[in-house]
Amino acid sequence: MSAPPIVLATDFGLADAYVGMMRGVIFSIRPSATVIDLTHGIGPQDVRHGAVTLADTHAYFPDGAIFVAVVDPGVGTDRRAILLETPQHRFVAPDNGLLTLVCRRYDPGFGDSDTAGPTAVPKDCRAWRLTNSSYWRHPVSATFHGRDVFAPAAAHLSKGVAPETLGDPAPTITALSLPPPRPESNVVQGQIIFADAFGNLVSDITADILTDMGVSGRESEVVVEIAGRVITGLSRTFHDPPGGGLKALLGSHGRLEVALVDGNALAALGVGSGTRVAVVAPQSDRSVQARSVNDIPEDR
Amino acid sequence: MSAPPIVLATDFGLADAYVGMMRGVIFSIRPSATVIDLTHGIGPQDVRHGAVTLADTHAYFPDGAIFVAVVDPGVGTDRRAILLETPQHRFVAPDNGLLTLVCRRYDPGFGDSDTAGPTAVPKDCRAWRLTNSSYWRHPVSATFHGRDVFAPAAAHLSKGVAPETLGDPAPTITALSLPPPRPESNVVQGQIIFADAFGNLVSDITADILTDMGVSGRESEVVVEIAGRVITGLSRTFHDPPGGGLKALLGSHGRLEVALVDGNALAALGVGSGTRVAVVAPQSDRSVQARSVNDIPEDR
Amino acid sequence: MSAPPIVLATDFGLADAYVGMMRGVIFSIRPSATVIDLTHGIGPQDVRHGAVTLADTHAYFPDGAIFVAVVDPGVGTDRRAILLETPQHRFVAPDNGLLTLVCRRYDPGFGDSDTAGPTAVPKDCRAWRLTNSSYWRHPVSATFHGRDVFAPAAAHLSKGVAPETLGDPAPTITALSLPPPRPESNVVQGQIIFADAFGNLVSDITADILTDMGVSGRESEVVVEIAGRVITGLSRTFHDPPGGGLKALLGSHGRLEVALVDGNALAALGVGSGTRVAVVAPQSDRSVQARSVNDIPEDR
Repeated sequence: MSAPPIVLATDFGLADAYVGMMRGVIFSIRPSATVIDLTHGIGPQDVRHGAVTLADTHAYFPDGAIFVAVVDPGVGTDRRAILLETPQHRFVAPDNGLLTLVCRRYDPGFGDSDTAGPTAVPKDCRAWRLTNSSYWRHPVSATFHGRDVFAPAAAHLSKGVAPETLGDPAPTITALSLPPPRPESNVVQGQIIFADAFGNLVSDITADILTDMGVSGRESEVVVEIAGRVITGLSRTFHDPPGGGLKALLGSHGRLEVALVDGNALAALGVGSGTRVAVVAPQSDRSVQARSVNDIPEDR
Repeated sequence: MSAPPIVLATDFGLADAYVGMMRGVIFSIRPSATVIDLTHGIGPQDVRHGAVTLADTHAYFPDGAIFVAVVDPGVGTDRRAILLETPQHRFVAPDNGLLTLVCRRYDPGFGDSDTAGPTAVPKDCRAWRLTNSSYWRHPVSATFHGRDVFAPAAAHLSKGVAPETLGDPAPTITALSLPPPRPESNVVQGQIIFADAFGNLVSDITADILTDMGVSGRESEVVVEIAGRVITGLSRTFHDPPGGGLKALLGSHGRLEVALVDGNALAALGVGSGTRVAVVAPQSDRSVQARSVNDIPEDR
Repeated sequence: MSAPPIVLATDFGLADAYVGMMRGVIFSIRPSATVIDLTHGIGPQDVRHGAVTLADTHAYFPDGAIFVAVVDPGVGTDRRAILLETPQHRFVAPDNGLLTLVCRRYDPGFGDSDTAGPTAVPKDCRAWRLTNSSYWRHPVSATFHGRDVFAPAAAHLSKGVAPETLGDPAPTITALSLPPPRPESNVVQGQIIFADAFGNLVSDITADILTDMGVSGRESEVVVEIAGRVITGLSRTFHDPPGGGLKALLGSHGRLEVALVDGNALAALGVGSGTRVAVVAPQSDRSVQARSVNDIPEDR
């Protein structure tokens, strides 16, 4: 039987040797490790981008996989190091909200308020604080816990060390405030979370939200508004309908994306993370007074 | 005996989590997989660049290796998914011409006409359409078949699933129109295919073409013309002859390259993919009227 | 027992297929290889950057690891290819000084003079010239020994081929001239070696030098000068003290770094590799006339 793989997700980029050092530490502890790079392109110190990335991608990894997630603006401060165990996976990470949307898979209300902070560990999950420094790499730097705390913890977990050996049970885990967009009547307003390398703008409006709004089968009637531009119809692919221009579609993250075919929507629209995007679903009953795109308040 | 490795070649870049999700899917299907990144830096949607990259590099990989090649501007349209088996390797890819120059290794005339389109599978090779959706990852997105179709197919192949289980035999495979440069008298005209990260300009003029033109042993007499610049002599290395300036040489791809020593030829010449480059070989017999660089028609 | 992993460190970047071809060659020779990427982001042809990177990071890798280090501006010239064996690791590399600071771990005087050149192999280490072309990949290009010489040598080593089979004993190895900064009175002057992707400026002033200068416990009294800016106090982390601005700290490389919190010091200061940086330690005895930051000569 294979040992569980270790999956790396950081904001370190690949230009430097930081990720390389983490890999070295893991293989030093477990020479037969399987190490998989999920991404090192999370926006620097962008914990929300990291939270979305982990939420959208972790289900593609094998049961038992151990994620090392490091977006850690508070490294060296008193922020805690956490180990979260879900029914499928384990995650080691700074306890700064990076796991908010993974937790939401198990508790729909997790991080769903206007205030961030300690939140009860979701049902079916368990958490520990990584406090046992015997399982860290020494000397422990003040600036790079990815290498000195998180990578070693994951390597020891993959060797079969029990979570309770690595630290103390944690009744709470830190949540970001990430209330999901809530449809009002036939309109939902969300925001852009990040742009990918192709300039596609990925929002916090998930496929589930649009399904709940009844867009299925009526995609051509959907209207999307962003930065003063109006896009009519939800495309199935970048080539639907044929031709160029701005398109709105459910992309590879399972989220509403805005893309410019043969171009870069990020550059063309001059927007970025935080920009508001609205979706107007077709009216389910024509006799009801539904809102139209003109009713959406301006935000820029 | 080792299972065959899976080799990834895409245009996704490494800034996002797209490649990471493909890796996750592969390891979910085959936890003991060996996954090797060939490159994720193929020019976005540049099928020709992908075709050249695969042709120049696949022979460096072990016999039995399974390539997942994804440059897929037509994802979600009716373009087909293909599995090509050569005597050494297997390739899963969109059937859009990406395998044109791999096929040419087995059929010198493959893709060698002025029109693209379905072409008989080369001798000694076999092909299948990936039609059996039981071996895809569900739900299958309309935008990311790398993750949902190609990566799973490769993982199942590496586990020993037979090609004929994954789909139906394909008598043809799509060729790009990539007629190779043809020498006329002592001159060959080709074009730049891509620039590498150092700004070296890589052309479609291969070592074989130059050898056929009889340049061996007379490299110092060769003249290369690009963008109005004339380079005399074919260098063996970037330091031959010592000193800076533009140099023409047979580079690491086995192709004529134009490089600016201690500089960036791409930026300095202001050219790019598609720029014409001409090579004038020394006259094999001085009594014959050979062409000189001044006889080459202008293209800019 | 696991075979030794092969660790890749190059200046090739990941945009092209060069690293991919090296991986392919290794797996062709040893299908069960473990290949770990340390970094491919060493500054192009920046041998000093490579030397510092290897020195700062190799100890994070398992005993027995085989490093393939390629920063090779002299590829194709008569520079030699070397294999260095230290008590912990093996390194294959061009013999151009890239291993200078690894050698210094075993010989404190290695590369410690004002002239570069052949230097006796450090005590407890052994070296060989990679001269046995039977263990190279053929045809050997003039431009890419990473693929054709170094990667094959490492793969054969990992299979148990003895160093003496790969080449002839080398009594010397090439050193760069990298004299370490030497404190004078309570001041040490060093220089910036490289900037990381976050714009943090990493210097040649190591933690050991600062410890020898007696800064421990008196970090708040340290003064750092760079490009006309004066930074008071050595921070423990990027958040110490809270708030923004330029900070000086001992970073993840074990070296003095200058960072701009929530910004990019490289861009903000407009400096780069080679810029001088000075550290003024607190006076150990107030009665002694110590130097202050105003006594440091200008270099810009």
